[in-house]
Amino acid sequence: MVGGGPGAFIGAVHRMAAALDGRYELVAGAFSSDAGKSARAGAELGLDASRTHGSWEEMADAEASLPEDERIEAVSIVVPNHLHHGVAKSFLERGFHVICDKPLTTTVGDAEDLCRAVAARDLRFAVTYNYTGYPMVKEARELVRGGALGAVRKVVVEYTQGWLSTLLEADGQKQAAWRTDPERAGRSSALGDIGSHAHNLLRYVTGLEAVRLFADLGTVVEGRRLEDDAHLLLELEGRVRGTLFVTQVAAGERNHLRLRVYGTEGGLDWSQEEPEALRLLEPDGSVRILHRGGDGLSPQAAAYTRLPAGHPEGFLEAFANVYLAFARTLRGERGAFADDYPTVEDGARGVHFVERALESQSLGGWVDAAYAPPAEARR
Amino acid sequence: MVGGGPGAFIGAVHRMAAALDGRYELVAGAFSSDAGKSARAGAELGLDASRTHGSWEEMADAEASLPEDERIEAVSIVVPNHLHHGVAKSFLERGFHVICDKPLTTTVGDAEDLCRAVAARDLRFAVTYNYTGYPMVKEARELVRGGALGAVRKVVVEYTQGWLSTLLEADGQKQAAWRTDPERAGRSSALGDIGSHAHNLLRYVTGLEAVRLFADLGTVVEGRRLEDDAHLLLELEGRVRGTLFVTQVAAGERNHLRLRVYGTEGGLDWSQEEPEALRLLEPDGSVRILHRGGDGLSPQAAAYTRLPAGHPEGFLEAFANVYLAFARTLRGERGAFADDYPTVEDGARGVHFVERALESQSLGGWVDAAYAPPAEARR
Amino acid sequence: MVGGGPGAFIGAVHRMAAALDGRYELVAGAFSSDAGKSARAGAELGLDASRTHGSWEEMADAEASLPEDERIEAVSIVVPNHLHHGVAKSFLERGFHVICDKPLTTTVGDAEDLCRAVAARDLRFAVTYNYTGYPMVKEARELVRGGALGAVRKVVVEYTQGWLSTLLEADGQKQAAWRTDPERAGRSSALGDIGSHAHNLLRYVTGLEAVRLFADLGTVVEGRRLEDDAHLLLELEGRVRGTLFVTQVAAGERNHLRLRVYGTEGGLDWSQEEPEALRLLEPDGSVRILHRGGDGLSPQAAAYTRLPAGHPEGFLEAFANVYLAFARTLRGERGAFADDYPTVEDGARGVHFVERALESQSLGGWVDAAYAPPAEARR
Amino acid sequence: MVGGGPGAFIGAVHRMAAALDGRYELVAGAFSSDAGKSARAGAELGLDASRTHGSWEEMADAEASLPEDERIEAVSIVVPNHLHHGVAKSFLERGFHVICDKPLTTTVGDAEDLCRAVAARDLRFAVTYNYTGYPMVKEARELVRGGALGAVRKVVVEYTQGWLSTLLEADGQKQAAWRTDPERAGRSSALGDIGSHAHNLLRYVTGLEAVRLFADLGTVVEGRRLEDDAHLLLELEGRVRGTLFVTQVAAGERNHLRLRVYGTEGGLDWSQEEPEALRLLEPDGSVRILHRGGDGLSPQAAAYTRLPAGHPEGFLEAFANVYLAFARTLRGERGAFADDYPTVEDGARGVHFVERALESQSLGGWVDAAYAPPAEARR
Repeated sequence: MVGGGPGAFIGAVHRMAAALDGRYELVAGAFSSDAGKSARAGAELGLDASRTHGSWEEMADAEASLPEDERIEAVSIVVPNHLHHGVAKSFLERGFHVICDKPLTTTVGDAEDLCRAVAARDLRFAVTYNYTGYPMVKEARELVRGGALGAVRKVVVEYTQGWLSTLLEADGQKQAAWRTDPERAGRSSALGDIGSHAHNLLRYVTGLEAVRLFADLGTVVEGRRLEDDAHLLLELEGRVRGTLFVTQVAAGERNHLRLRVYGTEGGLDWSQEEPEALRLLEPDGSVRILHRGGDGLSPQAAAYTRLPAGHPEGFLEAFANVYLAFARTLRGERGAFADDYPTVEDGARGVHFVERALESQSLGGWVDAAYAPPAEARR
Repeated sequence: MVGGGPGAFIGAVHRMAAALDGRYELVAGAFSSDAGKSARAGAELGLDASRTHGSWEEMADAEASLPEDERIEAVSIVVPNHLHHGVAKSFLERGFHVICDKPLTTTVGDAEDLCRAVAARDLRFAVTYNYTGYPMVKEARELVRGGALGAVRKVVVEYTQGWLSTLLEADGQKQAAWRTDPERAGRSSALGDIGSHAHNLLRYVTGLEAVRLFADLGTVVEGRRLEDDAHLLLELEGRVRGTLFVTQVAAGERNHLRLRVYGTEGGLDWSQEEPEALRLLEPDGSVRILHRGGDGLSPQAAAYTRLPAGHPEGFLEAFANVYLAFARTLRGERGAFADDYPTVEDGARGVHFVERALESQSLGGWVDAAYAPPAEARR
Repeated sequence: MVGGGPGAFIGAVHRMAAALDGRYELVAGAFSSDAGKSARAGAELGLDASRTHGSWEEMADAEASLPEDERIEAVSIVVPNHLHHGVAKSFLERGFHVICDKPLTTTVGDAEDLCRAVAARDLRFAVTYNYTGYPMVKEARELVRGGALGAVRKVVVEYTQGWLSTLLEADGQKQAAWRTDPERAGRSSALGDIGSHAHNLLRYVTGLEAVRLFADLGTVVEGRRLEDDAHLLLELEGRVRGTLFVTQVAAGERNHLRLRVYGTEGGLDWSQEEPEALRLLEPDGSVRILHRGGDGLSPQAAAYTRLPAGHPEGFLEAFANVYLAFARTLRGERGAFADDYPTVEDGARGVHFVERALESQSLGGWVDAAYAPPAEARR
Repeated sequence: MVGGGPGAFIGAVHRMAAALDGRYELVAGAFSSDAGKSARAGAELGLDASRTHGSWEEMADAEASLPEDERIEAVSIVVPNHLHHGVAKSFLERGFHVICDKPLTTTVGDAEDLCRAVAARDLRFAVTYNYTGYPMVKEARELVRGGALGAVRKVVVEYTQGWLSTLLEADGQKQAAWRTDPERAGRSSALGDIGSHAHNLLRYVTGLEAVRLFADLGTVVEGRRLEDDAHLLLELEGRVRGTLFVTQVAAGERNHLRLRVYGTEGGLDWSQEEPEALRLLEPDGSVRILHRGGDGLSPQAAAYTRLPAGHPEGFLEAFANVYLAFARTLRGERGAFADDYPTVEDGARGVHFVERALESQSLGGWVDAAYAPPAEARR
């Protein structure tokens, strides 16, 4: 693991997610660029001191120098956005598979560079768009792609949070500080941070890509350096109408990611804060609520389910499902349920999407959004 | 009443709403332009045949010729949009107060003409933006305007329906036919029909007017002559960010009008399909749900409440509240709770808003949306 | 109308419910035993002074003395429980149909006396168990009786309120005062007042009668003279297991009447505070929510629906449905949808049920609860 | 671990729960009484073959013979009920701490024997009443015990499932088979299996013990050997009224454990299927919903929280909290948050409660339910 030292929220999440199914063992890390902090973190996690490092360069070299059956197999990257490219590239070049947090990189060029590096060595690369790990999101995907809603016509995806309602970064809150800092987060904050999840969720469920977009980004909290609120209008493939809005200044909202898809034969509605239920809106005015673990769900949903219906699974289990799918893929477990993880190309699409939104914002008009990452092959 | 003959949904609603509190008596009508149909409707409603007419011109003249204490006091207009101006003008000119369905007219010019006519004779004119009649909407208004959310920063209003998911107008469905017909509905369908409610609800609760807007209107169902889906980005007074979206092709949605307002100190969330509850989002992550009829609500909400908490009130009661406020005003009942009805100026603002959206759509860019109707005085 | 003067909650409800469909006209009343108060109430309601009375005996005689086409056709009785029998009997003997609030009477003997009086003259008598007026309750009935749940096995009905959490009757609150007074309410308070609704709702939907019961009644608020909390275990016909609990001291509860029915093939769940939805629990773990006004509901539900789906109906509309069914019956409108009102025999069953609960309580054991009112014929 | 071999639901849950925080390592097991099956299970779990056994007696002896710093520290017991006592006793006698699934034993005598064994050697013993591990249950406990509801007056706890709606045990379903078999489950099925959770939840949150009870147990599914449905009326300490009902034949219900507590100042409502929210019913008719992870929750709830609000935690995290509290206790971590696990005495109370219910059932009347387990000291 690179990153994820003391005070880091997402590092601990990655570790719990990886541990849940007993398919990963944490054996090496560069948890902080402060060698002492990294060593302490490693010790707390029970690592051998020889495999705890104060820099990822050092770790990459050290692991590569170990015999093949002793070195790490894959690295998890949980550092701020601006470092993703460098760290990932370094490990890829040494032949390690990569699991990297989102957004993939801060520029499209960097993202494409990673795509090419992955393809060149036939490695595997997962981007932790963790919300696609929820079984009921998988069920939604199967239903939409299987035609249960008829032809898709309209998509509404929103992701509203309130935690940045104040200038938290001025108080030295670590999470807020780097996410609102153009040097570390890249040119976008809210859109890159949570808009990338919303964009990927929309793509994952519907299989539709944006072809045009109009964006209105705004900075609501005075003194903030990047946008904290964004509304996008989308034209998706096949003239499907879409809207995507995200905010981090909706005081009182917790972590409200919600997707609605409407087709000629009905609609569906899923919310991350109630992830166990998938609401299907029927044209007769009734609503059918499917529950994770219920009989009759798709094999895709069932394959990423651990507990019976009524025994709530949550965020960690969904996150773990990205790790689980990656493990199944690395182990060559074939079948319908491996390969169900977000790829480096999914990551590149997300970075491109944010760039086009920034372009629309600066032009004040619609812009083209069609895109294909280089070397897209699998999936 | 003008309009509201057999098969008309909204005419019956107006009659039940007016009857609920025993403050209106239906005594005359031109229910259809077919004299026979109008007469039959009148007879079914127990009207005197002498006061049932086959044209509104005839009715206006006949009522005006009656002695002052025998003639109608106010007229309800429930005809298709394109007729609102003519009918309303005619009754205003004869000195009758008017209650008119929304949208007020099909052009801003017509709307302003009515504003001037109302002001000139010091008459009263209500536009039945009925959703503002819900007690918990009044509570929301009191809370927002009283500062309970701090400074407002962001507003999301949506109105999604599914009933026009198919080309219903081709099957001769009467409601669909006129609402999608430019000759009768005006230049807009979804935005004029339900977007006008969403716009007015936003204004009513927040007191904020749009100063700029960007609109993307679309016609999803092939063969339809007007838009059935619309997304708008708004800049409200004080740089408040807003989004408004409406659709009539979200298959499976019933009548989902929802308003969310976020301020520096919290948010609120209200949905028309669960109108008895008002959700207040607190910055600490808790949610407080206020219920109609509860202790401690504002006098404004309490004044438009008929039943104790837990005894659900609904659409008809809210609609009746517009009639009730208008009756209180006509009777000169002073105090905080008369005058709480949507005025002709509110109606003009709605018509103007739709026109600006059409302008933005044709330009593909942001347009100015600031506006003041003529002769705006009261409220 | 007898009763329903100033300060009476339920009188106003009856009047609004009767008015809603324009099928009743209020023409006479004895609104209070204080002649002055009654006269003032009558005047406010627009009644002719000659038909406003200071006693129901006077009113009954006066109406009976009018020519047949001028006198009232039916009387609404909205006085405290202990007066129901006397008033109803008096009007029945003069040939008037009766609409009477619940519980029907305070003793089984009185209830049976009314049953016989109704049968003897072939009059109609409705008891306003208003919660059976909700369209989705009618839908539930059709589903259960049509076998949608398979064989019924278990029923849970609860009615929880909090308004009597304090000794409100000691503060002179009029509603609390008579309902907790054995002289006026009868031998039971909570069970008679709201348990009778719960019992009737269970019977209406399932068609099952209790054959044995065990009751535990308690008085939670110190100083109260009757029970304010009751738990009953039921054995219904066919060895179906049931539980019924009611309370008026659950601080914070508003008016939570809820019915759950489980059969071999699934369950259903309906709550009065969200009356527009009927939840069907499927054995596969999914839930189907039917909404009032939706396509595909039973004709019985549709016949008591006024507005499209998504336009909330509530308590008043349900109450009005009892009046509407009674009007359809009196007018001889045949078909499936007349006669769908609670009868005097339903009322007698409710009174008997309460008496058996009191008996179980005093014995501390199970008691027989089977019962048939005299002269039960119709329905 | 003893038990938890192939096909066992709860064994895997215990393992994931123990793993989540990295405070337990699974090193030895007797996963099945079939030595081959046990060995295969151990191998799959990565255990050393020398520490995988075909009987728990063998495992107990083997572990006790290891040097102190190599042997297990505690054993998890996840076998059917009738074996709990024997296994636990054996490990206790060899000085191991125990984590045991519920119900503790099948007789009160056995339960008391374990209480004495624990006390005699000053060991620790946790019973996995896992539902008390939910942070919002801990919050409920803090609120109730801190007086937020005033004096408690009434408690309603229910646990409804539908999975035993058919005679699943006749199809060889392993879970159903032993739970409905008197030889393995003990004299009670539904009440012992899920009623014990409901009873413990009530006790945990309110701190109140039952002093009298009346029970009505029933077997709904023909051919079943033990009860699958039970309704209990409770008198709790301080004359608090309670009701507890459980069923496993409510077709369509998943795992609906719900607790409602009403006091003089308000109520609370928590449901296991939506465990992140705790609903507080205020006397003014409003509802306040607290969310896990929110600011301002009690330290007790916060200490058992891993993720921010809006990132759902679920069943596994709650289960893990029992393991976490036990680990904190074993490690001597002092403070408010260790020792927050269900003890052997809590287990004994549960067994006694079921026995009294069976007694009431056979007598058809109220029975005394007061009880204190032997050697109750801590907590």
